[in-house]
Amino acid sequence: MSLISRTAEASLADIMMDMGRRGRAASARLAGLSADQRTKGLVAVADAIDVSAAPILEANARDMAGGRSKGLSDAMLDRLALTPERVQSISKAVRDVAALPDPVGREIARWTVPSGLDISRVRTPLGVIGIIYEARPNVTADAAALCLRSGNAAILRAGSESLQSSFAIATAIRSGLEGAGLPADAVQLVDTTDRDAVGFMLAGLEGNVDVIVPRGGKGLVARVQKDARVPVIGHLEGLCHAYVDVDADLEKAVNIVVNAKMRRTGICGALETLLINRSIAATFLPAVAAPLRDLGCELRGDDAARKILPDMVAATDQDWRTEYLAPILSVRIVDDMDHALKHITTYGTSHTELVITENTTTAERFLTSVDAGIVLHNASTQFADGAQFGMGAEIGIATGRIHARGPVGAEQLTIFKYVVRGTGQTRP
Amino acid sequence: MSLISRTAEASLADIMMDMGRRGRAASARLAGLSADQRTKGLVAVADAIDVSAAPILEANARDMAGGRSKGLSDAMLDRLALTPERVQSISKAVRDVAALPDPVGREIARWTVPSGLDISRVRTPLGVIGIIYEARPNVTADAAALCLRSGNAAILRAGSESLQSSFAIATAIRSGLEGAGLPADAVQLVDTTDRDAVGFMLAGLEGNVDVIVPRGGKGLVARVQKDARVPVIGHLEGLCHAYVDVDADLEKAVNIVVNAKMRRTGICGALETLLINRSIAATFLPAVAAPLRDLGCELRGDDAARKILPDMVAATDQDWRTEYLAPILSVRIVDDMDHALKHITTYGTSHTELVITENTTTAERFLTSVDAGIVLHNASTQFADGAQFGMGAEIGIATGRIHARGPVGAEQLTIFKYVVRGTGQTRP
Repeated sequence: MSLISRTAEASLADIMMDMGRRGRAASARLAGLSADQRTKGLVAVADAIDVSAAPILEANARDMAGGRSKGLSDAMLDRLALTPERVQSISKAVRDVAALPDPVGREIARWTVPSGLDISRVRTPLGVIGIIYEARPNVTADAAALCLRSGNAAILRAGSESLQSSFAIATAIRSGLEGAGLPADAVQLVDTTDRDAVGFMLAGLEGNVDVIVPRGGKGLVARVQKDARVPVIGHLEGLCHAYVDVDADLEKAVNIVVNAKMRRTGICGALETLLINRSIAATFLPAVAAPLRDLGCELRGDDAARKILPDMVAATDQDWRTEYLAPILSVRIVDDMDHALKHITTYGTSHTELVITENTTTAERFLTSVDAGIVLHNASTQFADGAQFGMGAEIGIATGRIHARGPVGAEQLTIFKYVVRGTGQTRP
Repeated sequence: MSLISRTAEASLADIMMDMGRRGRAASARLAGLSADQRTKGLVAVADAIDVSAAPILEANARDMAGGRSKGLSDAMLDRLALTPERVQSISKAVRDVAALPDPVGREIARWTVPSGLDISRVRTPLGVIGIIYEARPNVTADAAALCLRSGNAAILRAGSESLQSSFAIATAIRSGLEGAGLPADAVQLVDTTDRDAVGFMLAGLEGNVDVIVPRGGKGLVARVQKDARVPVIGHLEGLCHAYVDVDADLEKAVNIVVNAKMRRTGICGALETLLINRSIAATFLPAVAAPLRDLGCELRGDDAARKILPDMVAATDQDWRTEYLAPILSVRIVDDMDHALKHITTYGTSHTELVITENTTTAERFLTSVDAGIVLHNASTQFADGAQFGMGAEIGIATGRIHARGPVGAEQLTIFKYVVRGTGQTRP
């Protein structure tokens, strides 16, 4: 069983370049379909995943056995594990994407210029999207579905731990596409753990990859930044801050901070550093520390914070730079909002930043000043999520500065072209 | 006179990294200004250019003398030359940009989600834009003005031929900014012809360059593609095609094709390859060849075209791949529109593509099928220009696939962030 034809002689380079050409050809066909045809394809993909639950679970059992023998942590094994319910939730996510509005061909703007030309900006697919990810097998279906919804072909590179599961899901997706009369090569999975495959993708497969979306840890991100020769829509760190202002409602602030830190500690929107206005620190810090510690959260504070709660671990500069993704929170006492803004500018990763205050003027200044994909006022950073934003789904949260920031959904996987209709105009 | 402080000991690396830090600091200040303050700054810049006409013209005289001694072609010298009128047109262009709507802070969309969060997408500057360009000194002012309008700091690297002129213009711009109370470092010009400076810019100046905009020939573009470690908004080749359909109005088609090729042959929107439907070729080709040749255009045709006009030069595969930027047109006879589309897919550069037909169904199929930044129906490709599109000005025509395609104006030099206003929401 292979998603790509391979002969004994074919080199990895040949195989990868062939994937690129197939992806390009499939993307041209996909872009020419109607929204309705893409929707039918997505529904067929969801059906095929349901029908293929048994082989997907069998493949996952092999991944799990491999993971256990490699000594993966319980947390990693839990991310990797599939159950019949989890397979259903994977197909359900595809059905949700099928129900999203199709962005391709949508007119964004239209105007007429003095020469009489009728000009419109129309959404078009990006083309072929290379997605390099780790661990969770459900990304295979999520990424494929968002690419299909936006008329793009996907070339997927799964992590080695989840390769069997991802392969089984991709096989189901391809059979679903074929059954619906869509090109199976709209979704291809790299069928090898050879790390050189990533290098070929980052080099662009001879111009046949238009953008790379990396989803993974620091090692992957560093490699992508170093080697990518095609544009990257980056999903880097989420070192999220909350600033609790002098005018905060302290009960509200406790609820928000506890939720932002502890609802799920392993997601990129989880709170990592708490900045507390000095005037309220003596009251607020003990009030928020108690429920955090009850939930098992370790607190690391600066000197001022440790004067209030002496049993805190001392925070070092490294703490301000660390995305824990764990039940640990660093705490700093700041003189005022400008001090907080300076901390965020120095240590933030432009992901999600939060101000908690009842003072609207203060809030608006924070929202305007902070340079991040998502800026929040009086709501948990755990809302940093495409579905919570009403975008249906996301392929990640972009922390770069071009093309898209914040949750990247189907619409953000498109670009536009200018369509100009004339009546014989020549330029003077 | 130097735009950047330099000591005997300072290495080029030190100087460039310092420019990056200054650019970053200036961009933070610029982004925090009101639209009105940015407008006043732009007007002050235009005034300063007018006041500095004498030193700008003196600097240009030195560039011209250098260019003559280096043996630059007359065409290149003409691009380089400034006159009092040209200096006025440079300041006029800045005034035009000052009159454009300011994109920063504009709300693109706003909605409420079931959790009660009020979410908006708001335009923000990109940050620090590195612009690497050649020859024409007016780019110094055009690029600086568009960056200022969009709240971005600019780090400019001019070509060595125009460095004196560009330096004089940049000096005027900086004095105008300072006079208006804006940071002079919002516009910095690299004060050396050392080619390593480009390398430092492409590496991102320690994270202080957010995007690179290259404007120049193939050598520059190739280097940018090879070495850039930061995102690029690319302005590559404009190998533009026109397809003259069986249902074309032939008189209209002649006018459009002659204008598209010959109005100006050196711009990226100039027509380079003409694709003629076989059914009308015997009539149309002689009809369009006569006025083209009268204007001094050389025609290079495939075998079928040369059967109709035997005195044409034979076109080779290399002709289909060549952006002449000169009075030369390659001509191919195609069987039908699909044949034309295939040619455009194979040889096009995603810049500007044109269909000439009176058949609306045919036109719409072309406009939908062709993958380019600009697709035109019945109008000259020479309209491929930001000002002609009503965008006021442009920094170039993007031929890449992410962030922006087609003319890149002030709005395209922005990105967005999500502003989320809550009332204490936590995520279940």
